[in-house]
Amino acid sequence: MSAAPSIAPATGEPVLLRQDEDGICTLTLNRPGARNALSLGLMEALQDALDAIRADASVRVVVLKGAGPAFCAGHDLKEMRAEPSREATDRVFQTCVRLMTSIARLPQPVIAQVHGIATAAGCQLVATCDLALCAEDARFATPGVQIGLFCSTPMVALSRAVGRKAAMEMLLVGEPISAGEALRIGLVNRVVPAGTLDEAVTAMARRIAGKARKVVAIGKEAFGRQIEMGLDDAYAYAAEVMTRNMMMADAKEGIDAFIAKRDPVWEG
Amino acid sequence: MSAAPSIAPATGEPVLLRQDEDGICTLTLNRPGARNALSLGLMEALQDALDAIRADASVRVVVLKGAGPAFCAGHDLKEMRAEPSREATDRVFQTCVRLMTSIARLPQPVIAQVHGIATAAGCQLVATCDLALCAEDARFATPGVQIGLFCSTPMVALSRAVGRKAAMEMLLVGEPISAGEALRIGLVNRVVPAGTLDEAVTAMARRIAGKARKVVAIGKEAFGRQIEMGLDDAYAYAAEVMTRNMMMADAKEGIDAFIAKRDPVWEG
Amino acid sequence: MSAAPSIAPATGEPVLLRQDEDGICTLTLNRPGARNALSLGLMEALQDALDAIRADASVRVVVLKGAGPAFCAGHDLKEMRAEPSREATDRVFQTCVRLMTSIARLPQPVIAQVHGIATAAGCQLVATCDLALCAEDARFATPGVQIGLFCSTPMVALSRAVGRKAAMEMLLVGEPISAGEALRIGLVNRVVPAGTLDEAVTAMARRIAGKARKVVAIGKEAFGRQIEMGLDDAYAYAAEVMTRNMMMADAKEGIDAFIAKRDPVWEG
Repeated sequence: MSAAPSIAPATGEPVLLRQDEDGICTLTLNRPGARNALSLGLMEALQDALDAIRADASVRVVVLKGAGPAFCAGHDLKEMRAEPSREATDRVFQTCVRLMTSIARLPQPVIAQVHGIATAAGCQLVATCDLALCAEDARFATPGVQIGLFCSTPMVALSRAVGRKAAMEMLLVGEPISAGEALRIGLVNRVVPAGTLDEAVTAMARRIAGKARKVVAIGKEAFGRQIEMGLDDAYAYAAEVMTRNMMMADAKEGIDAFIAKRDPVWEG
Repeated sequence: MSAAPSIAPATGEPVLLRQDEDGICTLTLNRPGARNALSLGLMEALQDALDAIRADASVRVVVLKGAGPAFCAGHDLKEMRAEPSREATDRVFQTCVRLMTSIARLPQPVIAQVHGIATAAGCQLVATCDLALCAEDARFATPGVQIGLFCSTPMVALSRAVGRKAAMEMLLVGEPISAGEALRIGLVNRVVPAGTLDEAVTAMARRIAGKARKVVAIGKEAFGRQIEMGLDDAYAYAAEVMTRNMMMADAKEGIDAFIAKRDPVWEG
Repeated sequence: MSAAPSIAPATGEPVLLRQDEDGICTLTLNRPGARNALSLGLMEALQDALDAIRADASVRVVVLKGAGPAFCAGHDLKEMRAEPSREATDRVFQTCVRLMTSIARLPQPVIAQVHGIATAAGCQLVATCDLALCAEDARFATPGVQIGLFCSTPMVALSRAVGRKAAMEMLLVGEPISAGEALRIGLVNRVVPAGTLDEAVTAMARRIAGKARKVVAIGKEAFGRQIEMGLDDAYAYAAEVMTRNMMMADAKEGIDAFIAKRDPVWEG
C-alpha cells in the first residue's frame, strides 16, 4: 500500500508506535480513541513494521501492546460499513490474515501485553502471539455473533490456542471472559496486577532477548511447522532441525559455556 | 429405519421426548430405567429428531438431557449381547457414529445438560456437543476397558475435547471423574449446583437463541471445517467465510444496530 | 547396537534396571550421578528393553522412573560434545526419536513416575508416556534455548501434550515449571506428596494391569492412529476397531461378567 494512512488523519499521531531497547521492540497500537480498532491503516502500519523487524537482526523479541484504555477492540466497524463492497471487505480480511500469519511466522517471538479489552480481531492477536501476559482487569471476547458477524477468522487462532469447548462458548455466546478464565483455558500465559504488567512483560522479554537470536528463530519456525504434521513426519523434521542446530556455533558455545559454568557469548 | 422402535416396548413411553420453546428445542433421553442407555431405538429416534431439526428454522439451539437419575450410560449392553453377530454389532457402531457426526454438523449449536453419570457413549455425547454444562453431582467415564471393550469411538470425541494425558487416563483406567475434574480438563464449560442446572442451561440457550440463526450456522460449520486444516488453508477458508458473512443482511443489520446502540432485528 | 554399553564403564552398574512384578514392568534409568542423562548407551538399553517388552505377554503396563535425585536431565551433553561430528549428532537424535516413538507405540501403556527434574529429553519422556504422575518436588523444563540448542525434538511431544501458549513459554524461556503448573497445563495426570509417589504409581499401574491386555493394546494403538485423522476418517476407523473388539472373547467375557456382577477372567 503506497498510500497507507499510517498517520491518523484526525490527530496527526502515528497509528503505530515503535520503540526499541536492548533487543526488545515494542509496538504500540495507537488509536486510543477507537480502542485501537484495526483500521486498514493500522493493520498496514503493523504489517510494515513486522516486515522491517523480520530482517532486523537487532530485534530479538517483539512486545505488542495498546495505548489508552484497551488492548484492541478488533476491526474498525465504522470504516468497514463506510466501504461495504465485497472488494473492500475482502481486502480487510485478507490484510488481517496476512498480518496474523506474519506474526505467527516472524522469526522473533511476539509477546502480547494485554490490558482492558481484547475483542474479536484483538482477541485473535492475543491468540496469535507466541506468548501473552495480561493485567487482572483484562477481558477477552469474540463477540462477532452479537452483531451478526461470526468471528470466523479469530476462530482460527482461538481454536488452536484453547480447547474446543472453551472456544465454542466464546464464539457462540460472545460474552467477555475474565483474565482468570483466559489463564484457565490457556489463552494467556500469566495474569498479573495491572500495576506490574509492564514490569512482568519486560522481564519475560529480557529473558528471551538474552537467548541466541538464530536459535530462537529456528525453534519458533520448527514449532509452527511440526505442529501441523503427523508424529513420524514431525519427528523426522525435528531431528533434522536439532542436528542442524547442534552444528551451529551458538550451540557449541552454549554447551561449552554450560559445562564451564560461564555465561555464553552468542554469535549474533 | 422404517421400523425404529421409538416407543419403548415395556412402558409405552417414547424413548425420546422433544419440547420446543422460544427457539430452544429440548431433547430428553427417556429410558430412565436403563439410565438412558443408547439402544438402537433411542439412537434412531435421536437421529430422526436431529434430521428434522436440521431443516427446522424455528429451532435455534438444541439442549440434550436425560430423564431420571442419569444423563446417559452409553450403549445398551444387554441389547448388544442379545444380538452378538458382527452385522448387528457393526450396525450399532455405525448408527452411533452417524448420530455423533450429525450432532457435530447440525447447523444449530447443541448444549449437553449433564446430571448423574455420563459414561461411554454417554460421555461421548458430552464431548461431541458444542457446549456442556453439568451439575456438581455429575460423573464422567469411558469405562469400556473394564468390560473388555475399549471406548474407541468415545475416544474420537474425547481426545478432541480434552488433552491427551487426561483422555488417556479416562480411557485406560476407566474410572469416573468428578464434575470439577471435567471442568479442569475442558470436557464441560461450567459446573453448577444441581438445583440450578436447568436455569443455567436455559440462560445459555437463550443467549444463543437470540443470535442470528444463519450466522450461528455459518460459524459452527466453519469451526468444524477449519479445525482440521493447516493454518494457511484455515485462514484462506475463514477469510472467505467472513467476507460472505459480511455480505449478509444480518451482518449489515447487526453492525448498524451496534453503531446506533439499538437491538438488532435478524432476518430469520 | 551389538556393542551398546549397557553397563556404565565407571561404576560397573547397569544403566537401566528392569523389575517385573504382577504384570507391572518397572524400568529405572540408572545413571544417578549424571541425573540419568540419556547417553547413547542408556537410550539403547531402553530401546532394547522396550523391544523385549513389546513381545512379552507377561507385561501389562510399564513404569518408567529414575534412580537418584532426578527423573532425567535430557541428553548427555558431555558425551555429545566429545563426539561433535554431524554423524554422531545425527545418531543421537535418530536414536532418541526411535526411542520416543517406540514408547508411543508400545502395546502396553507406559506411566512416567517423576521426581526431581525432568528436563529436555527427560521432559520429552514425560510428555511421551501415556500417563505421568509426579511428586510435589518435580520440576519440568525444556531449557535447550539457554545453551543455544532449542528443544526441537522435545517440542514434538510437548506440543502434543499441552496447549500452545504453555509449550511456547517452556521452549522460549527455558525455565522450570512446578509440579502444580505441570498439572494445570496437562503435562502430568496427578501430583502427590513425594513420600506417596511409589504407592500412587503402583496403584494406577495395578488398575491397568487388571485389564485385558489385548484390549488395552487395541485401545492404545487406536488412540495414536485416530488422533492424526480428520473426524470422519477417525470415526470410520474407530467404529471398525470397536466392532473388531466386540468380537473378541475378552469383550464377551467382560460384558457377561458385568451383567452377572462378577469379576471377568481375561483370555491373556
